[in-house]
Amino acid sequence: MVAISNLQDLLVDQLQDIYNAETQLTKALPKMAKAASSPELRQAFENHLQETLGHVERLEQAFEALGEKAKGKTCHAMKGLVEEGQEAIKEDAPDSVRDAALIGAGQRVEHYEMAAYGTARSFAESLGQKEVAQLLQQTLEEESAADKLLTKISAKVNRMAMAGAGA
Amino acid sequence: MVAISNLQDLLVDQLQDIYNAETQLTKALPKMAKAASSPELRQAFENHLQETLGHVERLEQAFEALGEKAKGKTCHAMKGLVEEGQEAIKEDAPDSVRDAALIGAGQRVEHYEMAAYGTARSFAESLGQKEVAQLLQQTLEEESAADKLLTKISAKVNRMAMAGAGA
Repeated sequence: MVAISNLQDLLVDQLQDIYNAETQLTKALPKMAKAASSPELRQAFENHLQETLGHVERLEQAFEALGEKAKGKTCHAMKGLVEEGQEAIKEDAPDSVRDAALIGAGQRVEHYEMAAYGTARSFAESLGQKEVAQLLQQTLEEESAADKLLTKISAKVNRMAMAGAGA
Repeated sequence: MVAISNLQDLLVDQLQDIYNAETQLTKALPKMAKAASSPELRQAFENHLQETLGHVERLEQAFEALGEKAKGKTCHAMKGLVEEGQEAIKEDAPDSVRDAALIGAGQRVEHYEMAAYGTARSFAESLGQKEVAQLLQQTLEEESAADKLLTKISAKVNRMAMAGAGA
């Protein structure tokens, strides 16, 4: 394990974790979109994939602002989150119930990312790295908006699941 | 994989995931408390362990209200989150920087749990399972309060990390 001497090292370490997490997510989201039955949900996952590609770019800008090479280190939590998404995709369930499971997996991912970006942004703020803090805050806001959209879609999906839609 | 026929099956499936996650957490929190240098942070982890034992009990009440036996199924995301906590514990870093890493890991856990409880509570609400929804909401509020407390502690810890405390 690389020694972490100070808060800047820890910020770089966190960015490497998030960079890997976002990269994993760019591979998982197309599968979640494909598995979604609700057109709104499919669209939400597809739009979030485009946003996620932007998040990867912002992380590259953040690495550059810190004078570091952009690289990832395995994010074990995102590995587990993606595995849960896979379980939802493969769920032997009526369409609307599978959609509800996909939303559950998606919101877990968004919340994880909000925590990760919140931590990294607070380190950047402490370090007086304003540009980096701003880049991370922009993405944090998009993750939060994506989460709120999933909550909105879930109201309709849960009603359909209760009505046994796609059974 | 067990077939999920309806939203109630999916709620039970979600509760099994969370039950396993909370059980994993009862084993991880004592290690995180032990690794913390800040007395406030150590206390926060120790208090959250007590709360977590209460969350396990509430889940058992929720299973009972649904006429189901309390049991868990491996929560892959929490496995990854605990692994990240282990990395923070073992970090070759000054004390205050390790504390900052521990807070980052702890807040990821809290956010994951908030998402999981939020999803399960919304299913319980859709199903008209008021008692279950209320039990899950109570825990959700405690997870959210634990997250806010970690944010508060992080302000001091980040300042200490900037000052090179425990180097």
